[in-house]
Amino acid sequence: MVKPLEFWFEFASTYSYLSAARIEDACAEAGVPLVWRSFLLGPVFGAQGMTDSPFNMFPVKGAYMWTDIARCCSDLGLPFAKPSSFPRGSLLAARIAAAHADEPWVGAFVRAVYHANFAEDRAIADDAVIAAILDEIGQDAAEVIATATAPDGKAMLRHATEEAVERGLFGAPSFVVDGALFWGNDRLEQALAHARAA
Amino acid sequence: MVKPLEFWFEFASTYSYLSAARIEDACAEAGVPLVWRSFLLGPVFGAQGMTDSPFNMFPVKGAYMWTDIARCCSDLGLPFAKPSSFPRGSLLAARIAAAHADEPWVGAFVRAVYHANFAEDRAIADDAVIAAILDEIGQDAAEVIATATAPDGKAMLRHATEEAVERGLFGAPSFVVDGALFWGNDRLEQALAHARAA
Repeated sequence: MVKPLEFWFEFASTYSYLSAARIEDACAEAGVPLVWRSFLLGPVFGAQGMTDSPFNMFPVKGAYMWTDIARCCSDLGLPFAKPSSFPRGSLLAARIAAAHADEPWVGAFVRAVYHANFAEDRAIADDAVIAAILDEIGQDAAEVIATATAPDGKAMLRHATEEAVERGLFGAPSFVVDGALFWGNDRLEQALAHARAA
Repeated sequence: MVKPLEFWFEFASTYSYLSAARIEDACAEAGVPLVWRSFLLGPVFGAQGMTDSPFNMFPVKGAYMWTDIARCCSDLGLPFAKPSSFPRGSLLAARIAAAHADEPWVGAFVRAVYHANFAEDRAIADDAVIAAILDEIGQDAAEVIATATAPDGKAMLRHATEEAVERGLFGAPSFVVDGALFWGNDRLEQALAHARAA
């Protein structure tokens, strides 16, 4: 019995970009149902006593990350341009992805936001940029944003982030399959194998 | 023109165990010359303001690491038993690997020390355990240790560790190919590809 794969992602996270770009195809190819789980890394880092991205707290590691992500994008054939601001605020985009996780367009939205952040250096923290992205993928921006920022919509992201902390997530991307946690884009294949063997 | 691959490793490092177990075969298969670069992570972490393993400083991440390393060992067919002490002191073993890096038996020694630490839960910080391992691989323990702990031998590890900091290493395992840094067992294949393309 194949289990679903939960994809936990944060729009500010560089390595989530790699997974977001390929996860819908990878799950389809493996016959594994995909569950989009948008969350915020800030409170997760905060729960561990961190007040910034580890890539900013540890600049030597951060410098490497930018080299590594450029190489990984090149290997995957993904465009990449180092964002002029990092990490970018992702609250509205994350609320939209949480509140609309079951919509057929959520994958297109997620990929478009990552592409804006990491290939086009657009300011995804700005509501206007998110509205423009919704327009670009053919959605009614005002309606989508209204649902995501209504009290029920906001609660979905807040609960997801609380669940992330409770379940021992500490970074993004993370994959959860049948209760088992896999961390990092490098573990997507292992998580898919687990979903098929579970 | 194929470039050599420098394998930077620390005997206390769990993920270095995964690379150490397979790197000699992987390099031989790829036709890439292998350079063993033993170093100490403690001073490297210290240079970033850390006083312990990040896996101990961030326990949520540490808990995941032990699950992940067990799964990765299983995938690679490697025996694994969580060590009762972590991270174990590795000074003598690291000095031996640094001072004898060009000996034909260095690979066997490196693998035996990792196996002792991560499959047999042996106290590799104890000189007697290291001497026993040298005996097990057919080396003259007294002679090997004498060379590694003479002033010239000690200097080799100290200089290697200084070089690691200067070159922007921040963890282990790391691979350096033609000046390019690759971090983590998950990047061994990328580093090998770089060595063949450089």
